[in-house]
Amino acid sequence: MAQPDQPDRQERYLQTATAFVEKALTEQKGYRWLGELCEIGPRLSGSENSLKAIHWAKAKMEALGFDRVILQPVMVPRWVRGKVEEARVIESARVKGRKLAVTALGGSIATPREGISAEVVEVKDFAELAALGEKARGKIVFFNRPFAQQLTNTFAGYGKTVDQRVYGAVEAAQAGGVAALVRSVTTRYDNVPHTGSVNYREGVTQIPAAAIGQIDADFLSAALKQDPHLKVRLKLSCQTLPDAQSYNVIGDLLGSEFPKEYIVLAGHFDSWDKGCGAHDDGAGCLQALEALDLFKRLDLRPRRTLRCVFYINEENGIRGALKYAREADSLGLKHLAAIESDRGAFAPRGFSVEGDSAVIARMNAWLPYLQKADIEWVRPGGSGVDVSQIKNAKALIGYVPDSQRYFDFHHSDNDVYEAVNPREMQMGAAAMAILAYLLSEEGL
Amino acid sequence: MAQPDQPDRQERYLQTATAFVEKALTEQKGYRWLGELCEIGPRLSGSENSLKAIHWAKAKMEALGFDRVILQPVMVPRWVRGKVEEARVIESARVKGRKLAVTALGGSIATPREGISAEVVEVKDFAELAALGEKARGKIVFFNRPFAQQLTNTFAGYGKTVDQRVYGAVEAAQAGGVAALVRSVTTRYDNVPHTGSVNYREGVTQIPAAAIGQIDADFLSAALKQDPHLKVRLKLSCQTLPDAQSYNVIGDLLGSEFPKEYIVLAGHFDSWDKGCGAHDDGAGCLQALEALDLFKRLDLRPRRTLRCVFYINEENGIRGALKYAREADSLGLKHLAAIESDRGAFAPRGFSVEGDSAVIARMNAWLPYLQKADIEWVRPGGSGVDVSQIKNAKALIGYVPDSQRYFDFHHSDNDVYEAVNPREMQMGAAAMAILAYLLSEEGL
Repeated sequence: MAQPDQPDRQERYLQTATAFVEKALTEQKGYRWLGELCEIGPRLSGSENSLKAIHWAKAKMEALGFDRVILQPVMVPRWVRGKVEEARVIESARVKGRKLAVTALGGSIATPREGISAEVVEVKDFAELAALGEKARGKIVFFNRPFAQQLTNTFAGYGKTVDQRVYGAVEAAQAGGVAALVRSVTTRYDNVPHTGSVNYREGVTQIPAAAIGQIDADFLSAALKQDPHLKVRLKLSCQTLPDAQSYNVIGDLLGSEFPKEYIVLAGHFDSWDKGCGAHDDGAGCLQALEALDLFKRLDLRPRRTLRCVFYINEENGIRGALKYAREADSLGLKHLAAIESDRGAFAPRGFSVEGDSAVIARMNAWLPYLQKADIEWVRPGGSGVDVSQIKNAKALIGYVPDSQRYFDFHHSDNDVYEAVNPREMQMGAAAMAILAYLLSEEGL
Repeated sequence: MAQPDQPDRQERYLQTATAFVEKALTEQKGYRWLGELCEIGPRLSGSENSLKAIHWAKAKMEALGFDRVILQPVMVPRWVRGKVEEARVIESARVKGRKLAVTALGGSIATPREGISAEVVEVKDFAELAALGEKARGKIVFFNRPFAQQLTNTFAGYGKTVDQRVYGAVEAAQAGGVAALVRSVTTRYDNVPHTGSVNYREGVTQIPAAAIGQIDADFLSAALKQDPHLKVRLKLSCQTLPDAQSYNVIGDLLGSEFPKEYIVLAGHFDSWDKGCGAHDDGAGCLQALEALDLFKRLDLRPRRTLRCVFYINEENGIRGALKYAREADSLGLKHLAAIESDRGAFAPRGFSVEGDSAVIARMNAWLPYLQKADIEWVRPGGSGVDVSQIKNAKALIGYVPDSQRYFDFHHSDNDVYEAVNPREMQMGAAAMAILAYLLSEEGL
């Protein structure tokens, strides 16, 4: 356990925490940067937009006067949606011609140019699919299990629901299916299809996979009850191109006393090609960026080096995180801690920490300062996909905002600038700044 | 301090808390009721809409099978906005003719039919107004102090900002001003004017008072710098009619063991005449309603009587709360506790309690159950305007959701059904149900 702070140090920490919060809430710089970033559009790995955004970010870090700004080269996969994606009921007594709101899952192969036309078989899960035996052969397999809304934490609900999106194509193909159609994995009842990655497996036939909006999923389910032999035609023109050159963007504020001890603040800079990747994860990156800038605005020099990392390719490969970790390892960089923001720009709740019990106890002792930004708890738990690749940090930390609305927006056209509340986003930036400050002052 | 619960009781409490949460999140009944309520429109005290809504609520409680449903008569003030409310720059070299987005503050008198045309003097606060001396005489006093965004809790920010809306007309009149124009008291930067009550004072001339949207407030402020003598014409046709008959709506689930011990769950059913009063406070009422209905859906009979109260006239008179408290007092009703939800339908954070330290300690011991609905804390603090009128309760409790977005919507056309997130609203209903259950089982 840490010793109690000296009163004057406590006072300084409280004042600094309050100053971070006040500056963040009144100036709202990160939120305005997010507006600029969203103007560029979505930032799928390897896309032209993603490179524009990367250069925008580098220029921003330089303009903010960071001590060192680095583009770290990373080769990334390049999947392209293409122009055609549609689904339509083509045979049915009642609903022939009805269009269905669909979008290709990320990584899906295309259909033949004329589409795939087949009957549809609806299942709730893989067990139900297995029980169908040969009845799925030659059909479009329609995975229609609703989001696990009963769980308080929507990430837990997502975890219980997303198997059908990730593994649906493999399971459907193994049952003889010709395509997979997956109910959008989202907490919001609307007709906006949500994308996300689909996996294929060596040795299993690759079949096209698409998400369908919840309203049309319910429509299709009802239509199938009336007319089990209706046929749907699915057309997708997506494709995977050769790997493309991309970059992690890294910006440092050098530590005054321990410049070789790094505290990483991070998000991922790629997004899916829907909306503009505002919550996922433009906002997370810009919270990390603003946390560093808040030190500059308060004229504070950190004792340890603060490093802002915008990782590329979290959504479909984590190549950026793997490259960063590998290179850091080979350079022998010493990471004290890494904080990732990749759960949306919502009101702060806590920090989830991979670290030993002494580290957790030490961070809990900082709650009086963190509470200035509405952080209620520090608990053991997962950090984030990107920072968790770092090998030698004493603490890998996930910033945890409230989860209720995240999957309303996630991976869809709903994830736009207007979906982000400025105060909620800014509170997160302040929370990360306070934690980075304490880590930098105190070490672990 | 409460004794530790027996293991079997703990288990039952945990299971019940989880069941409340799961039912609330999956069935989303309260959220759908809010949709029905919002169809009726806003519910200003004394309005036709408010009476329609009251009868809708009574019918709803009866349909849900409550043991007793009561309309408690209350005479309420009746202020009517009227058809005309506009402001325009009528003399200016640069911006003559420019319309300004304004809305009358609740309770304001009208302007003469031809409007009030005058120069405008801008101030940040009453001290600045006082320092102007005679310079405000004959002018429209424009209170343009921004919302105190620097505070984490937006209710604290509101408290630091709202004086200009509540007392601006009196202060302006005392300085010789002819009308008060007040920058909308809101956290959101848009051009939607937010209403709310304005006070007059015996012996001080009543002058008309209106809110102006933030964008137009900034426009007007910039225009005044260019042209300090520009004139604005303000026209309002609002008026106060004679008091009208209205009602509190009360529904009871009788306690099986202590039917004469009441636990009140409450919101206020009136709203301002903007948007549809979704967050303020339709959602709060329907969270209280659903909390009781969750007992029925789980086939639980409370040990003490649960009473749902939809108070009328919180916004401009609290006549409903005064009437309820007075009548309860004269009947000698015993209130164990009262829980009010009137801070918006956002994700749960805590409960704020007026009660002695033993009561606070007892409720803190319930956190393991309350945390099932993401309640993080129970703290001493204010409850709510309506329930705090009740004289003899051991605990007056405010349900405290996250505050970041509330004032984006509050008292304005932004406060519509679409501004409410179903999961956030339902989590609040579950939190209130859990607390009501523990109060009912354990007493205080």
